[in-house]
Amino acid sequence: MKPGADSAITRNGKSIILAYDHGLEHGPSDFDPVPETADPEVLWDLATHSAVTAFAVQKGVAEAYYPSYEDDVSLLAKLNGTSNLWMGEPDSAVNWTVENAADLGADAIGFTLYGGSNHEVEMQEEFRDAQEAARENDMGVVMWSYPRGQGLKNDKKPGTIAYAARLALELGADIAKVKYPGSEDAMQQAVRAAGPTSVVMSGGSKASDRDFLETVESAMNAGAQGLAVGRNVFQREDPEGILDALEQVIFEETTTDEALETAGL
Amino acid sequence: MKPGADSAITRNGKSIILAYDHGLEHGPSDFDPVPETADPEVLWDLATHSAVTAFAVQKGVAEAYYPSYEDDVSLLAKLNGTSNLWMGEPDSAVNWTVENAADLGADAIGFTLYGGSNHEVEMQEEFRDAQEAARENDMGVVMWSYPRGQGLKNDKKPGTIAYAARLALELGADIAKVKYPGSEDAMQQAVRAAGPTSVVMSGGSKASDRDFLETVESAMNAGAQGLAVGRNVFQREDPEGILDALEQVIFEETTTDEALETAGL
Amino acid sequence: MKPGADSAITRNGKSIILAYDHGLEHGPSDFDPVPETADPEVLWDLATHSAVTAFAVQKGVAEAYYPSYEDDVSLLAKLNGTSNLWMGEPDSAVNWTVENAADLGADAIGFTLYGGSNHEVEMQEEFRDAQEAARENDMGVVMWSYPRGQGLKNDKKPGTIAYAARLALELGADIAKVKYPGSEDAMQQAVRAAGPTSVVMSGGSKASDRDFLETVESAMNAGAQGLAVGRNVFQREDPEGILDALEQVIFEETTTDEALETAGL
Amino acid sequence: MKPGADSAITRNGKSIILAYDHGLEHGPSDFDPVPETADPEVLWDLATHSAVTAFAVQKGVAEAYYPSYEDDVSLLAKLNGTSNLWMGEPDSAVNWTVENAADLGADAIGFTLYGGSNHEVEMQEEFRDAQEAARENDMGVVMWSYPRGQGLKNDKKPGTIAYAARLALELGADIAKVKYPGSEDAMQQAVRAAGPTSVVMSGGSKASDRDFLETVESAMNAGAQGLAVGRNVFQREDPEGILDALEQVIFEETTTDEALETAGL
Amino acid sequence: MKPGADSAITRNGKSIILAYDHGLEHGPSDFDPVPETADPEVLWDLATHSAVTAFAVQKGVAEAYYPSYEDDVSLLAKLNGTSNLWMGEPDSAVNWTVENAADLGADAIGFTLYGGSNHEVEMQEEFRDAQEAARENDMGVVMWSYPRGQGLKNDKKPGTIAYAARLALELGADIAKVKYPGSEDAMQQAVRAAGPTSVVMSGGSKASDRDFLETVESAMNAGAQGLAVGRNVFQREDPEGILDALEQVIFEETTTDEALETAGL
Repeated sequence: MKPGADSAITRNGKSIILAYDHGLEHGPSDFDPVPETADPEVLWDLATHSAVTAFAVQKGVAEAYYPSYEDDVSLLAKLNGTSNLWMGEPDSAVNWTVENAADLGADAIGFTLYGGSNHEVEMQEEFRDAQEAARENDMGVVMWSYPRGQGLKNDKKPGTIAYAARLALELGADIAKVKYPGSEDAMQQAVRAAGPTSVVMSGGSKASDRDFLETVESAMNAGAQGLAVGRNVFQREDPEGILDALEQVIFEETTTDEALETAGL
Repeated sequence: MKPGADSAITRNGKSIILAYDHGLEHGPSDFDPVPETADPEVLWDLATHSAVTAFAVQKGVAEAYYPSYEDDVSLLAKLNGTSNLWMGEPDSAVNWTVENAADLGADAIGFTLYGGSNHEVEMQEEFRDAQEAARENDMGVVMWSYPRGQGLKNDKKPGTIAYAARLALELGADIAKVKYPGSEDAMQQAVRAAGPTSVVMSGGSKASDRDFLETVESAMNAGAQGLAVGRNVFQREDPEGILDALEQVIFEETTTDEALETAGL
Repeated sequence: MKPGADSAITRNGKSIILAYDHGLEHGPSDFDPVPETADPEVLWDLATHSAVTAFAVQKGVAEAYYPSYEDDVSLLAKLNGTSNLWMGEPDSAVNWTVENAADLGADAIGFTLYGGSNHEVEMQEEFRDAQEAARENDMGVVMWSYPRGQGLKNDKKPGTIAYAARLALELGADIAKVKYPGSEDAMQQAVRAAGPTSVVMSGGSKASDRDFLETVESAMNAGAQGLAVGRNVFQREDPEGILDALEQVIFEETTTDEALETAGL
Repeated sequence: MKPGADSAITRNGKSIILAYDHGLEHGPSDFDPVPETADPEVLWDLATHSAVTAFAVQKGVAEAYYPSYEDDVSLLAKLNGTSNLWMGEPDSAVNWTVENAADLGADAIGFTLYGGSNHEVEMQEEFRDAQEAARENDMGVVMWSYPRGQGLKNDKKPGTIAYAARLALELGADIAKVKYPGSEDAMQQAVRAAGPTSVVMSGGSKASDRDFLETVESAMNAGAQGLAVGRNVFQREDPEGILDALEQVIFEETTTDEALETAGL
Repeated sequence: MKPGADSAITRNGKSIILAYDHGLEHGPSDFDPVPETADPEVLWDLATHSAVTAFAVQKGVAEAYYPSYEDDVSLLAKLNGTSNLWMGEPDSAVNWTVENAADLGADAIGFTLYGGSNHEVEMQEEFRDAQEAARENDMGVVMWSYPRGQGLKNDKKPGTIAYAARLALELGADIAKVKYPGSEDAMQQAVRAAGPTSVVMSGGSKASDRDFLETVESAMNAGAQGLAVGRNVFQREDPEGILDALEQVIFEETTTDEALETAGL
């Protein structure tokens, strides 16, 4: 964790990371609710929304479009990922080198760590290489910290999420992306465990506008520094509307009610 | 995926890739229908046909003949492959480095990915190295995207083929070679999932002239950008004839009937 | 083992290493007894205590704070570590390269070796690389020598602890951190086995002031050269008090009674 | 496969490779029939026979003697090999780097590939590195192409031997060393499958003079380009005699009867 | 095997290698018979005895003392080794790079190969790297050639020991350290199999003065070129005495009786 290293993908230390690696992780069926979202250009345009501080994509989606969007979007290079076509102990392929991402102009790197997996040791070592290369290229580091694997029965327990947040700090991430642990208290526990590393809540599967925003509001009250969101934006009919509302809750510290009203939702 | 990177192996964005790595993947028995096709020279001559935009071979076949054909054939260096003498979880050896292929003058690289295999993570990482080295050498990248392995019961399901096409985009391929998923609708689904990555249909095992051309026509109607074909050309008595017809269907957008007539089949 | 190589983290050849990698190894629950210890700054401040000759942390905790403490704290870069979320044969990820630690200004490296684990061979080879890189950067080398794994029923047997101490010497560590083997005689056996390598006692889980100090006194009487301690300091209400007492026992060679009195405990 | 690359170890495109790596592959018991053959010097002297176009040995045997024989013997550096003391799925250690062999002055490299083994993928990748390094050093490449492993019940079936020969071509070998598949027809099938890659017959275990020569004659009639032989030479009382006869059959295209007479056998 | 490469650790082509890596391989219990032998300095002093042509230790023991003994002792850097705390298929960690050993001034390298182990392939490849690096640094190469593993029921059979000696030659060692195979004839068989590679007998566990010397005498009569010895020297009350006697038997070619008398044993 290096103070200030994530400044290119944050606004006043907070962030809304628009994530769009679902085509790799879940397959194109995640685009079925709004079929045009299969077209990356639709998402790149969405990423220019003022609420979005970083756009997280895999290499192929970045090299095809980023040169046209580099003035308007901050690129968070999601380095690893894997399909859900196989079903072994959690692991993730490193699909993108930091050097290549830096050459393309990426502002920060994103890396998934499945703590608790039988592949944890190997994944931590891959993270080490990525993290140190990011430092050499003055890039911020975001860890998707998702405990998962044989030994873990419940990966949303407060203690597990707090451990996930701590792993991000210990191993050198500037921002920890963790699942919402179910309550404001539990989120606070995770924020405390992360020390100087910022914690952002992972959006997860689609919820109603109000439910989603209330969860985000609760995370922010607990000390979280923002949100990483995909399906809860691009699976909606009005993705700009929810981004307007998220901008209110996260950067203007409004309540969910105010945000819904301001955004006209 | 890098716009324009595949221009050396396409014509107006479309391609007919003549593939000839069957000696490695299936063994010489694939040459039994037309025994002289065991001789690579016969295929190199065929690859000079105007319909063919790229010739895909393994290293040994390239280094023996390409210097004599470099003015007439665009070389697609098929980097990985394995024999069918063994029967474990799908995997493929990387038999050729990009640097060596570039030194020989190859125009693009081809790489098989068995998404869904227990070796998916490892194969994606090998693809990463190949893809990034190809970029450094200004070569296009074609992925043979073939989901296969323990977890997959049906590797031609529309959703699986669409996922295969998407993997090619996410990981940085310019062209995705996928199996025909059985209908024009399903092929369209794959084309949509691939976004800016071109989709070419894999020829598969030998069919009648009409059946084969109708499938190709359907794929083109679905938005595919061409074909990769081996046995459906070299296992025929008149390989030039079918190439004539394919040229009509793919580049001239004729119907199967017109193509059969023009090619005199 | 290189004579004098550990001088930056010892005082007259002895050391008190304050260890704070529990957030990685055990998770944030180790901070529950004194919640503010989740904040690394609290520990960095403690590490400025005159008793502490080295502060052992993982990369993330070092890069966030060391630049502000480099004049007051000697940094012992703990290179490997893993979470307790998984439960396989003991292993540890190398989370930090020596080069990166040296660039940050670390004075020495720390490395865990689980002798007796099925991963012993691999861990020894990782240690080799770290140890040789440390020599190139003029850094001392501390081995957390913890026999553990399938073949070991009792990892605190005198013979096992002596073997652990010897491994540190044979493989090139300057300081061996071992568990207290239960008696002064057994500790002496370990010290003898280590030859010129210094042996420091590992603090372990929290004990009463008197019990803890008496064990340390016994270790020192046996020829140990100091202590590596975490929970027995930071899980106390008065961590400075116990550090005062430890300074007496270790550097002033007082008895436990004298130390308790001097420290006002 | 690179035309002409094997010229240093062939005569008019044909070769007799004297192989002497049995001490590694089978152990010294292969020397029992003629005990002095345990002494490498005896074999090096034999390798100066005019019939021998290349002498295939492991690194240790080469570095001890080649400097004294470099004017009279063409060195074929057998890079990999393993003992028969263990009994797992076929694999072979790479015991010699191409760079070291090139520094010593080797003319070509030899490499075993167990196609069909569960280690096929790994062995093909090791072959890739060796083959490409050989090209950089202008050395010929000989593949010992021996399908073997769990999935193969009969490793001398005509189709298997033809596949073996084809693998050598596809992967980039100039010469394929394969077992005699039992008939002239089957050998012809292998020769055809190899395309421009030369096929040499593997000598195998000791047979009578006549039987052995008749097999060699049949292989040559089938289009083979020579022989790789060890035990059928050095386990005879008169190794020069059989070399004389082999020279007749292979380079002078005589019959077995003529060769036996000329050689005085 | 390179003629003359071992000259720095031999006298007239013969050697007495004092080995002291037992602290790693067996643990400190090997020092119990003579407790002060846990102190490496005691052994370094012993290594200055005129009989000793090389002292074999692990890295840690070398870097601590060799600078003080470099004028009086020839250093044989034992590169690999492992503890006996675990019990899997035989393997050995590479604990020391050749480059580091060369920088320290080592004269030769020592390397254990467990031929017949399921790790044979991997160990041979590690040996390759060490052997080739040794050549670049003009260092001799000694192989501890110890067939061992699942497939081997009797690792002292004459044929196995002869195979072990041959492996050392084939793979490029100058000296093969093998176990005494039980008879002079069997030792002769091993010596013959090794060709130009020197064979030295491994001392093994402690025996009486006379029994030990007679075995050494028998090995020398069989053509062995010396001895590698540890426990049979340092577990005796009078280690100098036995070294005196060994010097007689090995370099002066005396009988055991004469040697015992001369040495006053």
